[in-house]
Amino acid sequence: MAVALQTDLADYCRLAARRAKAAAAELAQASGAAKNAWLRQSAARLRERAADMLEANGADIAAASGFGLNEAQIDRLRLTPKRIDEIAHGLEEVAALPDPVGEVIESSVRPNGLQILKTRVPLGVVFFIYESRPNVTADATAICLKSGNAVILRGGKEAAHSSRAIVEILTETAVEHGLPADAIHLVETADRAAVGHFLSLPELIDVAIPRGGESLIRRVADEAQMPVIKHFTGNCHVYIDRSADLAMAERITVNAKCQRMGVCNACESLLVHRDVAVDFLPKIAAALAQHGVEIRGCEATCRLVPTAKPATNDDYAAEFLGPVISVKVVDSLDAAIGHINRFGSQHTDAIVTGDLAAARAFTARVDSSAVMVNASTRFNDGFEFGLGAEIGISTDKFHARGPCGLKELTTYKYVVFGDGQVRE
Amino acid sequence: MAVALQTDLADYCRLAARRAKAAAAELAQASGAAKNAWLRQSAARLRERAADMLEANGADIAAASGFGLNEAQIDRLRLTPKRIDEIAHGLEEVAALPDPVGEVIESSVRPNGLQILKTRVPLGVVFFIYESRPNVTADATAICLKSGNAVILRGGKEAAHSSRAIVEILTETAVEHGLPADAIHLVETADRAAVGHFLSLPELIDVAIPRGGESLIRRVADEAQMPVIKHFTGNCHVYIDRSADLAMAERITVNAKCQRMGVCNACESLLVHRDVAVDFLPKIAAALAQHGVEIRGCEATCRLVPTAKPATNDDYAAEFLGPVISVKVVDSLDAAIGHINRFGSQHTDAIVTGDLAAARAFTARVDSSAVMVNASTRFNDGFEFGLGAEIGISTDKFHARGPCGLKELTTYKYVVFGDGQVRE
Repeated sequence: MAVALQTDLADYCRLAARRAKAAAAELAQASGAAKNAWLRQSAARLRERAADMLEANGADIAAASGFGLNEAQIDRLRLTPKRIDEIAHGLEEVAALPDPVGEVIESSVRPNGLQILKTRVPLGVVFFIYESRPNVTADATAICLKSGNAVILRGGKEAAHSSRAIVEILTETAVEHGLPADAIHLVETADRAAVGHFLSLPELIDVAIPRGGESLIRRVADEAQMPVIKHFTGNCHVYIDRSADLAMAERITVNAKCQRMGVCNACESLLVHRDVAVDFLPKIAAALAQHGVEIRGCEATCRLVPTAKPATNDDYAAEFLGPVISVKVVDSLDAAIGHINRFGSQHTDAIVTGDLAAARAFTARVDSSAVMVNASTRFNDGFEFGLGAEIGISTDKFHARGPCGLKELTTYKYVVFGDGQVRE
Repeated sequence: MAVALQTDLADYCRLAARRAKAAAAELAQASGAAKNAWLRQSAARLRERAADMLEANGADIAAASGFGLNEAQIDRLRLTPKRIDEIAHGLEEVAALPDPVGEVIESSVRPNGLQILKTRVPLGVVFFIYESRPNVTADATAICLKSGNAVILRGGKEAAHSSRAIVEILTETAVEHGLPADAIHLVETADRAAVGHFLSLPELIDVAIPRGGESLIRRVADEAQMPVIKHFTGNCHVYIDRSADLAMAERITVNAKCQRMGVCNACESLLVHRDVAVDFLPKIAAALAQHGVEIRGCEATCRLVPTAKPATNDDYAAEFLGPVISVKVVDSLDAAIGHINRFGSQHTDAIVTGDLAAARAFTARVDSSAVMVNASTRFNDGFEFGLGAEIGISTDKFHARGPCGLKELTTYKYVVFGDGQVRE
């Protein structure tokens, strides 16, 4: 019986993926007008049916403590009329973005007259595995379909009712606008084995995108037989160069660390050139203390900041996601770059400097998805970069790096026009 | 003892990869001038030391029959002064290509004044696994280093002496031009387990590229813990539309099938619209017969071409790489597209047509790396597309699709310049 159920589950996953693949071929040909009308009308319906949405969300909230969610987690799960309006607004923002499909990325005419058009096309089917917040269901579906991809959504069970209510509206509206119903599939079984089945279908699913804790991402990366866009930790640095404007350095450090502590592009580690350490460290320590941030520092830091605790290498490698920062005084720009490339996570790193050569060296040699000069690490974000919505921030180098918006869910094909050319 | 040896092998692989990673960081900063001077002087030295090269190659040729190579394989392995000159010329061609590293791919200035530069950077370390021909050693090294990547070369044992002679020249010349010696590593052990060790080092190797038979590619794809650029089969189609110029259709079909039969972008399957089948099939059958090509066709084909044998679905799915072609008469453009998307390998497919709507539908809906209108499938090639040299033709959709030249061995990072911006 257990075996039969497992076989049923495998069949269910394969069927869902096969339908998504067929829908993707259709969706790749959909007009931008149809996709945008779908997004705008879905937004209108989310607002119209706010009462239904709140009711569905109420069922999730009622079950939440049974799933062991704490107050903060329950708060993230909760929908309010304002949050529903924000979800709807997100769909409208995706509608306003240019359609990436069909863009000619590069072109040339060869000496023999062949016209070569490198043309942007969708990837196909996206398998998106994510945790609880209901708005992610709407955002991800919007980005995937707008970029011409079908999506298989595997959300957290905590948001099951809310996600189903959102998907119902999105699917019903899609069909009304001539988009295939199978372009959106919400995986409703609670059986965790479903994820493994989907990850074993590389011929039907083109990319897997896990969004959540490190163990989820690790599991998906290990099991997936298709490419995975990974979003690992953000151990982001701010380096204060000897030539930094120290007022700017303080502003940027406080913003990068404290503006929102629990996110991947928040600063976790501060490096300070020894020539400015005596001036800068006591000031920044006081500013961070006002935000309740604990400092774990090197010996030099601990001498200058009496409240600092000694830092270990584990601290320098940590993504705290909370009110702790590691601090190190470095002898040179080279030492800062070396430290970042050793302990960092290739996510986002910033330098504060007035020195052009230092800025050029730092941006060239720090191997991270975004390298900031005189700006907060918090700007590494799809909206802030002008990409519009994002489905994650890739810490990979392959295919997509940094914020993943519409373009990062596409590939290309070469379309070649001739008038009878043959190869000599 | 065996265990000790295996441990030694694992250590050897890890050390080689670690050195390559360090070299890659250095190479990413190398000037285009240094890389181009390295390529040009290496070319000059290959010609100067042709006698040494021929001697090394002689050792491979002497051992070849012991490895079970047939005459055609031994011929491909053989160097001649002319072939050495061609290898040298290939290096000079790579030197003449623009340096991809540092190119700003996209840029914007955000409303808050942040300048966002999406900047091309190398991937890092390439692990290249390939079969025997010695010229591939030189080509791949040239492309990898020019794009700022270190390369670990695992060539076929059949070409071991030739590859070592080439790598010696390339490495010696690299060092003279200030490029790191560890940027080129030739794996010399005959132990096949070495490949598995390298494939288990995703933190040190950024991409694996297997080039060879399907079983090699499959093995690498299955074992690799890092991304793989795969080059699977080319089951390429030519579809003759009802509106085709039949003289052009014949020229393109013969070229696509016969100009070089053993390559991935050769035509393996011919689809003919029923309205032109009576006129076209006897003519093309006669033309293909002159090249010794056997036809395996559908019922309608067999009626029109008495020498044709009946085709099976396996024939429609086959990459013959030789003097056989599958042929099918189709009822419509839709049927042709459906057949290609079912049986094809997403490599290269062509339509011959005079009808704009047919050309637009075919190019939009055939899901292949290159779709040709009124041109031979044989043009799907890095040189023919103007990319310069290529390290393979990807049948993947992720990261790189179609010919992989310098740009396909790069990724990007965001470089952001501000003047103190913080996030609100």
